[in-house]
Amino acid sequence: MNNFEYKNPTKILFGKGQIERLSEEIPRDAKVMMLYGGGSIKRTGIYEQVTKALLGYNLLEYGGIPPNPEYNVLMGALKVIKEEKVDFLLAVGGGSVIDGTKFLSAAAFFEGDNPWELLTKGKPVMKGMPFGTVLTLPATGSEMNSGLVITREETKEKLSTGGPALYPQFSVLDPEVVKSIPQQQLANGVADAYMHVMEQYMTYPMGGLIQDRFAEGILQTLIEVAPAIMKDPSDYKAAANFMWSCTMALNGLISKGVSEDWSVHMMGHELTALFGIDHARTLAILAPSHYQYNFETKKGKLAQYAERVWNVTEGTEDEKAKAGIKKTEEFFHSLDIKTKLSDYTKDYEGTAEEVAKRFTKRGWVKIGEHGTLTPEDAKKIVEMSY
Amino acid sequence: MNNFEYKNPTKILFGKGQIERLSEEIPRDAKVMMLYGGGSIKRTGIYEQVTKALLGYNLLEYGGIPPNPEYNVLMGALKVIKEEKVDFLLAVGGGSVIDGTKFLSAAAFFEGDNPWELLTKGKPVMKGMPFGTVLTLPATGSEMNSGLVITREETKEKLSTGGPALYPQFSVLDPEVVKSIPQQQLANGVADAYMHVMEQYMTYPMGGLIQDRFAEGILQTLIEVAPAIMKDPSDYKAAANFMWSCTMALNGLISKGVSEDWSVHMMGHELTALFGIDHARTLAILAPSHYQYNFETKKGKLAQYAERVWNVTEGTEDEKAKAGIKKTEEFFHSLDIKTKLSDYTKDYEGTAEEVAKRFTKRGWVKIGEHGTLTPEDAKKIVEMSY
Repeated sequence: MNNFEYKNPTKILFGKGQIERLSEEIPRDAKVMMLYGGGSIKRTGIYEQVTKALLGYNLLEYGGIPPNPEYNVLMGALKVIKEEKVDFLLAVGGGSVIDGTKFLSAAAFFEGDNPWELLTKGKPVMKGMPFGTVLTLPATGSEMNSGLVITREETKEKLSTGGPALYPQFSVLDPEVVKSIPQQQLANGVADAYMHVMEQYMTYPMGGLIQDRFAEGILQTLIEVAPAIMKDPSDYKAAANFMWSCTMALNGLISKGVSEDWSVHMMGHELTALFGIDHARTLAILAPSHYQYNFETKKGKLAQYAERVWNVTEGTEDEKAKAGIKKTEEFFHSLDIKTKLSDYTKDYEGTAEEVAKRFTKRGWVKIGEHGTLTPEDAKKIVEMSY
Repeated sequence: MNNFEYKNPTKILFGKGQIERLSEEIPRDAKVMMLYGGGSIKRTGIYEQVTKALLGYNLLEYGGIPPNPEYNVLMGALKVIKEEKVDFLLAVGGGSVIDGTKFLSAAAFFEGDNPWELLTKGKPVMKGMPFGTVLTLPATGSEMNSGLVITREETKEKLSTGGPALYPQFSVLDPEVVKSIPQQQLANGVADAYMHVMEQYMTYPMGGLIQDRFAEGILQTLIEVAPAIMKDPSDYKAAANFMWSCTMALNGLISKGVSEDWSVHMMGHELTALFGIDHARTLAILAPSHYQYNFETKKGKLAQYAERVWNVTEGTEDEKAKAGIKKTEEFFHSLDIKTKLSDYTKDYEGTAEEVAKRFTKRGWVKIGEHGTLTPEDAKKIVEMSY
């Protein structure tokens, strides 16, 4: 096991009716900006629950944060935050709204003219405006970590940053929100959380026994609850386990002391930036090819995964490892998620070259858990995913 | 799943050489009191590592905190803390030293004449002096939780408390300390962590799927590493997994949203108070009888445990559940831990009555995960453990 540091100060309020408790967590004299997305929270009643819980607060709101939170939209919110002297942010939404809010937390305290540098300079964010979240879409885990991803439409870029200042002070996780989520987004949430675990787990056996067991436990739970959630999102028991799985998948715990990969995300972000394909679906497109391409270095862990998560007990290590890839792809199909780029766009020719070019431009010359994958490797993996 | 709150602000510094980093975590101008036990840290070199890391600090020390930290010894330390105006505590030791330090953290800020009331009034501790820990004996999990247990020799009492103020600010977990731990204490550590998980897990299937998988993962890891640790405690890989298992076993995560039992600990504390039997061994004495006595209410979970943790795939639910109890007892035996009270004392007659009397006196009339166990039940369970 590698040396590690672990600290996660986010307070989780989990369960039915927890939105009512918002006023326990936000200072009474705060000037609060509530951020949200396209307005679905008004249809689902969550908007009303939140504003009711914060009755008597000095509360502004800023809606319209798009999926893959867009830099220029956020700059509009930043202007209001500064003009109105807002001092507490409340994200009410999914990963995009939460990531956008994290960016605003950092940008509000950023000393410099161009907050885009928060994303391009690669420095951890050490100062941010306090913020909390009300999660409406389990998927990204952003509600209990300090990372964020921001998109810039004009340059078709999708970049990430993070830092100790960007843990939410609190996150409200009420599984009852799941019942209002459309099928496609539920499927995305399951696949996204699944691939978050895989990026931290699917490397090589390196003796992080607890980390492996926890990762496998989250995968098993997602596999167990996915059919129930897809069939009936108002199944509270399934929704609660789905929600807590998504949070545990990316709150930093399972990656401590072990190697991580994240290549699939790095390639996937480019597919979203280029074609607007849902983030989770880009991961489902690339993961099987990635594991196939890196079969020799990953087969030990793939075989362990097949055995423990999918109960594949027969065959050689190679056979088990292959079964692991196949089961993964079948799991995505069971969520009605297609796993080839050509299922999503006819304009896929040249994508592999474009992704490799972008990696090279950003200086990502060595990626993956061994730091051995080059832009040329990424090109081949993307090609295998056509 | 039940509603829950979760927040654990302790920072973990895990791995080789982390003791050197103490000065990053303790304010330079703090007046620090270092607390330790019987002096084994001087033999193992940990004392020297700590004092070297804190060279230049205003550092006092207070050794001699006994196993089952004794109230009167701690009151001696409290006097020095007040006289010398200490403002940061550093526990260097195992669960006893850490629990004692937590008590001192609370007692230093206690407003009242009699700090014993911290243990008898049942109020969560909301204020405490800042403290950190250097863990030298993996077992209790106290390094990443906010609970403590204190013993008072004169009244043969062992009582607990806790509260949000009693999370360590940081804990240093260097698995290299494991190599200096005597066999008996290693065995105790494994059994203690195992039973911590069992108290939170061995109730009934209640749909906390992640919690169950994580609990099972910790048990599986302890089972996997125990033989390696007992054979060669300088096996770093095994030591690291052992250490992280002990912390994860009782840092609050696996109990969130599910019912807990803790009856075995409540009865076990009485056996330690009465006979001085090592804490972990009291749990090994009582657990098999407890599960046997409560077989009807626990058999669903016992069968799940037998299947998932011990790979018992044959038989009816009852048969699997019984196999689960048997495997548990055999696991303790594999650690050279005896599982009958009569293995430890000849004076066991009347113990069951005494335990029941003490429970009644403290008003513990309904314990266990269903709140149905009476002192009369405890009497029968202790009797079954003779």
